[in-house]
Amino acid sequence: MARINEHYRNLAAGYLFPEIGRRVKSFQQAHPDAKLIRLGIGDVVLPLVPAVIGALHAAVDEMGTPAGFRGYAPDQGYDFLIEAIREHDYRARGVEIAAGEIFVSDGSKQDSGNIQEIFGQDCKIAVTDPVYPVYVDTNVMAGRAGKADASGRHAGIAYLAASEANGFAPEPPRERYDVVYLCSPNNPTGTVLERAQLARWVAWARANDAILVFDAAYDAYLADPALPRSIYEIEGARSCAIEMRSFSKRAGFTGLRCAYTVVPKECTGGAASGERVPLQGLWARRMSTKFNGVPYVVQRAAEAVLKPEGRKQADEQVAFYRENAQRLRAGLGAAGFTAFGGVHAPYLWIRTAGGLSSWDFFDRLLQDAHVVGTPGAGFGPAGEGYFRLSAFNSRENIEEALARIRRVFGRSG
Amino acid sequence: MARINEHYRNLAAGYLFPEIGRRVKSFQQAHPDAKLIRLGIGDVVLPLVPAVIGALHAAVDEMGTPAGFRGYAPDQGYDFLIEAIREHDYRARGVEIAAGEIFVSDGSKQDSGNIQEIFGQDCKIAVTDPVYPVYVDTNVMAGRAGKADASGRHAGIAYLAASEANGFAPEPPRERYDVVYLCSPNNPTGTVLERAQLARWVAWARANDAILVFDAAYDAYLADPALPRSIYEIEGARSCAIEMRSFSKRAGFTGLRCAYTVVPKECTGGAASGERVPLQGLWARRMSTKFNGVPYVVQRAAEAVLKPEGRKQADEQVAFYRENAQRLRAGLGAAGFTAFGGVHAPYLWIRTAGGLSSWDFFDRLLQDAHVVGTPGAGFGPAGEGYFRLSAFNSRENIEEALARIRRVFGRSG
Repeated sequence: MARINEHYRNLAAGYLFPEIGRRVKSFQQAHPDAKLIRLGIGDVVLPLVPAVIGALHAAVDEMGTPAGFRGYAPDQGYDFLIEAIREHDYRARGVEIAAGEIFVSDGSKQDSGNIQEIFGQDCKIAVTDPVYPVYVDTNVMAGRAGKADASGRHAGIAYLAASEANGFAPEPPRERYDVVYLCSPNNPTGTVLERAQLARWVAWARANDAILVFDAAYDAYLADPALPRSIYEIEGARSCAIEMRSFSKRAGFTGLRCAYTVVPKECTGGAASGERVPLQGLWARRMSTKFNGVPYVVQRAAEAVLKPEGRKQADEQVAFYRENAQRLRAGLGAAGFTAFGGVHAPYLWIRTAGGLSSWDFFDRLLQDAHVVGTPGAGFGPAGEGYFRLSAFNSRENIEEALARIRRVFGRSG
Repeated sequence: MARINEHYRNLAAGYLFPEIGRRVKSFQQAHPDAKLIRLGIGDVVLPLVPAVIGALHAAVDEMGTPAGFRGYAPDQGYDFLIEAIREHDYRARGVEIAAGEIFVSDGSKQDSGNIQEIFGQDCKIAVTDPVYPVYVDTNVMAGRAGKADASGRHAGIAYLAASEANGFAPEPPRERYDVVYLCSPNNPTGTVLERAQLARWVAWARANDAILVFDAAYDAYLADPALPRSIYEIEGARSCAIEMRSFSKRAGFTGLRCAYTVVPKECTGGAASGERVPLQGLWARRMSTKFNGVPYVVQRAAEAVLKPEGRKQADEQVAFYRENAQRLRAGLGAAGFTAFGGVHAPYLWIRTAGGLSSWDFFDRLLQDAHVVGTPGAGFGPAGEGYFRLSAFNSRENIEEALARIRRVFGRSG
């Protein structure tokens, strides 16, 4: 009998979003007429912008001609997209990234889940808590995490608590860890690491010879140009940080799929021989063996997002969602909730009403307000007592959700 | 210092196709005027068929409207595509596959590389040799294979030799293995497992409580309707086989990316507790945690391939490539080469000329005939002395390649 990967048995019962999906489906079956407003999963709702639609049509036409047809894409992505990324996402911010350091992929979820494969089994992993579940679950699957205790903490992972006391931005720890996952703007708390905080992380990583996995999938929401968009804006980060950026939330690509990861040539890990091995080569090998490129038409669409017209159109969508977030924050505050985030991020992080557990609050919000959110506990033990609301919805639905929340919970928060 | 995944050090120097790419690039730099004909990497050249182009344009238009926009796709794929697969790829062949058993993905390379993740570290793996390198390399990366010996064989993997003597279709072994990778029509040998041979593998897997990973990415090339297109056409396969199918070679999707994997609910592996665990649930968990769906527009394109007009158009492309393969086979035979495959597959597997090693033959073909192929040794030790040629090219290039090969190697094969 083929033995299964026993580590899967250490996973929590279900990946967070499928579990939410199940509860919502069961509610809908019982209440087929309820008009649900979904502020749960962070999925965009606005259509792709005209510049992207135009680029897609043009690329589709090419694919229908003998001269324009493209088969397998280059391993790390097409030059036109890589050059656009270098120029607009990096050079424009004073950062030089080499072409070979950029790996175009089909999503930051995939990249942040797969990156652990290039590290040794015995690496000590740290995450901030609450945390995007993929960082933890993929390390559980790989056998680095072990079993979870009653609180949901896996013995093999260090949880750095993000709390109201530290502004949901834990400082670098005194302990040594090999790999630390950071996410800013943060999913789920919607808070952001400022330049000085990020600089302390880089200094810590260099002092501890550690690697930072920096997930900047939400960087488009940084409203203040002084905030770092890339960790490479911090001196010294090239030798200690891997960065992930995405087109999903920046330009509504959740259903189109394009992202990229940067692995600078200076990032190294240690071999058993003591030799330092560049992580860029390991990731290149991982991707050329287990991935086969992002569709040409999608890479052309991503390129369009980086051109002036596409950027303007995409920025307008981001501004729309950001305005949603601000209205949610103000409205929730007026309803008596304590709310965090929502300024440089599309997510609000609120204290649950009346001290409810986050899943109880989820159920109550669903049952009484017909609003779907995400229970904080789904993001880790320190998320208990909190709740994530997403600003990805129509203005009308945001206002309607606020009205319902006020009706159900008004001033009880 | 973060330790690297030491198993990567056990990989052969480079994934096969990047290595070919390097040699070709270096040749081109030295001979910028040489007109290369590429029969190496199995990449299609014909443009996407009109039905696919039409479906892509229509789906792109939807994505540009508020009502038609789609964000994250359902975890396992859209119902419209899953139902089309159930109907056309299975029910039409007398096979019933449940919707939840089908996982739409961005490629069979990915699926056949990732499937090993759900198995235990100590599973005994067997492959046929020569073999698509992804099956081996991903098990090397996972630590199941250990170091390679001088012949390139990894100690932890069993190589079942596919030779001229057994028609490149080794019989099931006497030994027990937990997971066996089979590929039919075969990459690289272009040979095919007939119904009786496949039935012996299913019987062996059931008797040994093993899992067959059946890669049928080239099933569209089966010219004889009596040949099984799916392993589930064999009685009993549902409890022992995982199947991979692809749109890449069937409809020119190498640059569009769509495939799927079937994990029947009856397939189980063993937990440490002795309990039998359905692999379908493990794969579902793997995919929902580390994947985020195939673009909506691509799933619509794949659906179009399964509709009558798209099928007809795609079948014409397959027939064109198959005719290429037959001409290659006949022409190589006339030039004195011993050639296999190329009937139910887009690949020819030939003995190298004059007893050359397969990389020497690669270099000679490149230098003297300006034709790029794939050295058999790149597919495993038993591939030494052989060479793969792909039929994916224009008729003109196929004829020109044959003329050059005749000129350089005529009757020396």
